[in-house]
Parts: sequence; C-alpha cells; structure tokens
Amino acid sequence: MEGLVLQTLSSAIIPDLKINSERLRADFEELAQFGASPGGGINRLALSPEDLQARSWFANRIEEAGLEVNDDDAGNLGGVLPSPDENARTLLLGSHLDSVPEGGRFDGSVGVLAGLECLRVIQEAGVELPVHLEAIDFTDDEGCWRSLFGSRALTGRLTPEDVNDAGSDNAPFRAALTRAGIIPREVFNAQRPSDTLAGYLEVHIEQGSRLERANTEIGVVTGIVGRTTYDLVFQGQAGHSGTTDMYRRKDALRGASQFIVRAHDLVRERYGDGVFNCGNIAVKPGAFNIIPSEAHLTFEFRHVNEGLMAEMERALISAARESAAANGLTVSTEVVAQMPAVSMSGKVIQTVEQACDDLGLNHMRLVSYSGHDAQMLSLYTPSAMIFIPSADGISHNPREFTRWEDVVNGANVLLRTALRLALKS
Amino acid sequence: MEGLVLQTLSSAIIPDLKINSERLRADFEELAQFGASPGGGINRLALSPEDLQARSWFANRIEEAGLEVNDDDAGNLGGVLPSPDENARTLLLGSHLDSVPEGGRFDGSVGVLAGLECLRVIQEAGVELPVHLEAIDFTDDEGCWRSLFGSRALTGRLTPEDVNDAGSDNAPFRAALTRAGIIPREVFNAQRPSDTLAGYLEVHIEQGSRLERANTEIGVVTGIVGRTTYDLVFQGQAGHSGTTDMYRRKDALRGASQFIVRAHDLVRERYGDGVFNCGNIAVKPGAFNIIPSEAHLTFEFRHVNEGLMAEMERALISAARESAAANGLTVSTEVVAQMPAVSMSGKVIQTVEQACDDLGLNHMRLVSYSGHDAQMLSLYTPSAMIFIPSADGISHNPREFTRWEDVVNGANVLLRTALRLALKS
Repeated sequence: MEGLVLQTLSSAIIPDLKINSERLRADFEELAQFGASPGGGINRLALSPEDLQARSWFANRIEEAGLEVNDDDAGNLGGVLPSPDENARTLLLGSHLDSVPEGGRFDGSVGVLAGLECLRVIQEAGVELPVHLEAIDFTDDEGCWRSLFGSRALTGRLTPEDVNDAGSDNAPFRAALTRAGIIPREVFNAQRPSDTLAGYLEVHIEQGSRLERANTEIGVVTGIVGRTTYDLVFQGQAGHSGTTDMYRRKDALRGASQFIVRAHDLVRERYGDGVFNCGNIAVKPGAFNIIPSEAHLTFEFRHVNEGLMAEMERALISAARESAAANGLTVSTEVVAQMPAVSMSGKVIQTVEQACDDLGLNHMRLVSYSGHDAQMLSLYTPSAMIFIPSADGISHNPREFTRWEDVVNGANVLLRTALRLALKS
Repeated sequence: MEGLVLQTLSSAIIPDLKINSERLRADFEELAQFGASPGGGINRLALSPEDLQARSWFANRIEEAGLEVNDDDAGNLGGVLPSPDENARTLLLGSHLDSVPEGGRFDGSVGVLAGLECLRVIQEAGVELPVHLEAIDFTDDEGCWRSLFGSRALTGRLTPEDVNDAGSDNAPFRAALTRAGIIPREVFNAQRPSDTLAGYLEVHIEQGSRLERANTEIGVVTGIVGRTTYDLVFQGQAGHSGTTDMYRRKDALRGASQFIVRAHDLVRERYGDGVFNCGNIAVKPGAFNIIPSEAHLTFEFRHVNEGLMAEMERALISAARESAAANGLTVSTEVVAQMPAVSMSGKVIQTVEQACDDLGLNHMRLVSYSGHDAQMLSLYTPSAMIFIPSADGISHNPREFTRWEDVVNGANVLLRTALRLALKS
C-alpha cells in the first residue's frame, strides 16, 4: 500500500483505522503471565525479575512488529514508528508495565499495549505521519522504589538524591537498578529536550467507579490530584501489658490508632474532594504482652487543588501531634514523596473529545485521583489521559477488571487522538 | 557444723539466716550476659540459644553448690537440697530464666537466683529440713511459645493440643523443643503428683509502681488476674488509595484502629480495675498506596474478678463487631490463650507476712496484674508470691530496674518464708 501523507485537520481525511482487538487481546493475556499470582492478580514490582521478564517480552513484541526499540538510560522502554521526517518530534503513547503488590492485570498494561497496537495499525496501513510515534513503558510508575521514576527521568525531574551514593537508603534501589542493567549515575541521560516532543497520551483504567456509575464509555482527564506521602513514627514506652497503670501508659499504637481514626474523619468532614489513606503500620516490639513502644505508619493524601493540599497537610500533622500528646508520645514526621497537582492540556483534551465524537463514544471530563506518568509529562509537553471504566471501581487488587470492549474503545480513542494530533503537528 | 532439726513454729527457733548479697549479685550479673542486648536489656526468648545457654549456666551453678540437678521432661530445671527424709515433700522456690523480646534483667531471673541462694545458705548453715527444697526455672513463662508451659506441665495442665502433630502451627514449637533436647510427646511426664509438693513460693519484681508509690518494701500477693488473649482479623477490600470513593472503602486498618481506640476507652470507662493491651497489628497488603484489605491484631485483657472478665470479653468482642460493621468489614475472633484468675493460699500469705515482720520489712497486700507460674502452682499446691518494687513501674523493657537492696529484701523474705513453711511441714 502506498503511504498517505495527510496535512489538514478535517476529520473526513483522518484515516479510518481501528485497532486489532484479537491481537491486542493476545498480547494482554501473554503479558498477564509475568508475575501472575494464584488469585488472578499480578505481582510485577518495578525492576523485579517478573518486571524484567515483561520488559524483555515487550522488546520482542516491538521487534516482531518491525518497530525500533528505544531503551533509555533510566530503563524506559519504547517502540518507535519513525516518521519519514528525521527531524520530526515524537508523540509518546505511554504507561507502565510494573504493578503494585497483588495488583491487577489492567493497571498500566492496557496503556502500554494499546500504544504498541496503535503503532502496528498505523504501520500496516502504510500511513506516514509528520511525527515519530513511540509506545513507551515508564520505569517504576507505581513507586515500588521511586514513584514515576522513568517519567521523571525523561522530563528532567530526577534529583541526585533519588539515586546518589550518599543517601544510605538508596543502596537497595541502586542494586535493583544495576541488576536491571541500569547504571545509577547515568539515569539523568534519559532526559529528552522538550522541543523534541509533540505530546503525550495515556490510556488507563479509571480505577474508580465514576464512569461506570454515569454509564459513560470514556473519561477525559482534565487534571491529576497532587499527592503527598508521609512517614510518621510515634514513640512511647514499652512496658508490661498487665502491670503498668492504664493511666500511665505511653502506648504508641493507641496514639497511632487515634491519629488514623481522626485523620479519616477530618478528611471526610472538611475536604470532601480529597482522599486519605494509611496503608501500613508496624509496631515494636510487637508482642501481645508488651505495651507498644513504637508505631511506624505511612499515609498519603490527595487533592486536585494545591491550596487545599497545603491546608490538609497542616490539619493532618496537627492531628498527629494531638494524638501523640494525648498519649504521652513523641511523633516524628517526614515527607517521603510529594507530587504536584497538574492540569492536562486544553488543546489535547479537546482532541480526545473530538476523537470520541468521531467514534460515537460518549464521554465525560473528570479529575484523576491516581498519580500517573502523565503527571510528569503534562509539566513538559501537551498531554492528556483517556480513562476507561473499572468494574466496581476496584483497582490495586487482583479483582481489578475492565470489560474487553472498554479496553478496545480506549485503544481506538488513543489511536484516533494520536492520528488527529499527529496530523495537526 | 552440726545439722539442726527444728520441729516447732516459734519464730525464736527459726534459724536466723540471711542470704549472701555479694554471691547473689555476682550470679545476677553473670546471668544478665546471656542474651544481653545493646540497650542494657535481655533477649532470652524461651528455648532460644540464649535461653539454653542460661539454663546450662544455671545447671552448672547448681552442681557447683553441691546440689542435685533435677531436669524434667518439660525442660523445667531445678536444683534440689534434699531433706534427710527421703519421703519428704518438696517445697518449690521458682520463677523463670526466659524473657520477653527486649525485656529487662530482673523479670524472672531474680526469683530463680534467689531460690538457689536460699538453698545454698541453708545448706551451708547445715540446717536440715523436713522437706526437700527445690529452686526451679520453669520453661516459657513468658509465652514466647506457650504461656506458662513448664508450670502447666508440672501441674498436669498441658493438653495434647499444646504439642501434638495434628495442629499444624505446632511444628515450629515442636522443633524448638526438640532442639532443646525436649521430646514433645514426653512433656506430660513432667507432671508431679500434688501430694509430693509442700508448696510454692516465688519472689518477683512487681512490674508496676504500687509499692514504690506507697513507699513499701514488700508486696504480698493475694491473687493473680485472669488473662484472655485474642487474635482478631479484620477483612476488607484492597483498592487504589486515590481513586476509590472515600465513602465506599472497606479499609481494614481504619476498622482496626477504631476498635483499638474504643477498646481502650471502654476498659477505662467501665472496668477500672481491668487492663487492656493491643500489642501488635499487621496489615496487608501494606503499601502506602493501597487500601488495607486485612488487619490482624492481637489483644489481651486482665481482671482479678472472673465474672468481670467474662463481661469485658463480651464488651470487647461487641466493639470489634461494631467497628467492623461501620467499615463494611468482617472480623474473625479467636481465643489464643485463657488463664484463670486465681487466689493465693491464705496460710502461705500469712507466713510471708510473718517473715516480713520477723525481718522488720513493711509490706502490703496486692493483686498481681501479671501472669506468673504461681498462677498454675496455686491451683495445685499452697502458694504465694513476694513482690519487690520496680523503679517507675517499668518492666518488659530494657530500662526495667529494681534497687539491689530490694532484691536482697525479697530474697531474705523468701528464705525466711521457706524456713517457716518447711518447719511447719
């Protein structure tokens, strides 16, 4: 087939391509074998053997499709469909192959595979574009080591503290990078000049139930909430669980429990659009007959409004200090990670909506309550995200599920949006 | 020196013996080296290498003193000063050499070493008694494996479920017994007929601050609180910490935290003489960005009144069910251990008080909020406990401390009480 070069914006001349559902499905099922857990979920933590196997498989799929493998110094792995114009900019279609512990099969995987499928369809149709197209897997989106590591590397947002030798707790991460063939001091080379990029698109499961409840096929993301993660350590005093006067105890777990209860209540009462999670707690010494001397917990909170993020932070830290004081404890607080709230590109949002209209899919605008690589990309190049429904809103769970027709819809919106954006470029 | 045989109860003819403070102190310092932790505490969990080293050291001390080693099938280790009367009953002076994790140097050790010192002093004085005297270390008082294992074995309160093969979670315990040279199926042989026993005495640190606050040298224990230990597992649903609607979460840690807060409050509000401890909690999957699907906690409560124990149990389990229901969780509850509340022997209590009066030490009656081997022995033979003050009431902590003069007082009350009881026998 002769290559087509299309130069105008009329939707009539956007080639009427659709993704190959069966081929995408076969990829999806194969990928789900890497790190498959007995309960039907996925354990594919970033840089784990399972993650490295999945990436190796993805590189093979890229080569089998006759695309170019682009493996950068931060472990981001792309398949490139080059434009005939060598100096063209690159439109990235990305997501991530890593998972949380006991995660689901759709989170991240759908976006990476849909990107690859778009490139194959466009290539097979012989359509030549004025941009390079790249389907990309970003390293450690989920933050098993460092949240959004790959997309921060690509956009120049890594700091020496992320990987340097001096930070003693970097040693396990450096070892994991090295095992994966990534040289810690060279991860900064992964930054690409922003003027080499044409934009960024990511299709992803919603991980919530707003689309399902609104009976809507596609979510067009307008912004992503900021997220701040804290480590708290409540310190009290160990003692005999029977003999120590109940009114003289310095019980670190009691203080931590009061904080958890208060934090949930205050976020619900005062920050209706915000969310809070305390996902783990560890107690020392941890015996049934010893009063806990230490409770170490990790929490995070999210809001799309940066001003309210700062207000929530103050309120939560106050609650921690009050819970500590009420129990004769000290509490130390440390910010572990902080991601800014961001807005997607208005132009790209509209392009996604046009693509949905072209395809006859109903759509709604919404905020993303989950962090995504798009959060970093949107600060660097015009970006948007395409959400597809999650059954019952369940995610980060082996029961995570999205109907296959919704995956296909998302991939087709990605394809159509990419074509529209490319042909505008 | 000629042996004295004394037959009457007049305090005038109780031999005026005192323990050797320096020798006891040297033993105490040596024993504290086994399992010594950098912070000045002790990690000498039952049947651990450190515990076995301490027992081996204790057996050597018994032999060096010219006493007989009595090593039973449950690992209880005694040193015996025999009576000239082969058919005499045995008066036990006991406690335990094992510790909790990061415990203190005084808990248990003082009682075992004071018992040995009493035997040495009586032997050196050439006093012959109408009872055998035995200084005994009981296996696993602290319940690292099975609470009061040794004293339950001696009093016939072990059940097959404590050690049998069928209970799959017995395997690590059976392995630990075997490594210590104890054959699991033979532990029942350690039971002694109650008519071979003349009584039981235990000197122990108070582990609370009542004596110190009352400026009193000796506590005479009238009863020991019952203790019930529960395992609770709150089950909810994992989910993405950002995207799941705050009002649709089934957060197992939130439910568990509400339970911990409510349990502490209700015990303080309704059961002033009771105590409650939740000493550990473990969360799954345990990532900062996943809603906790499971929270597994262990709690215990104590009261000296058996009727109120039952009432507390109902109230606590109700609180757990309410906290679960309020968060869309299920909760499973399992009794892990249950020790009855017991009373000490009135006769022996009075003998301890006479001994204190003989020595010019002030004393008060009190309830023990900690479980002790005396809890099992008191159901089997006339028993009493002698408490000495704990600085600041701190115990189960490396900072546990008792002034040496208080240790000496306790050991002398033990010696005097043993002589008084023996000469009554």
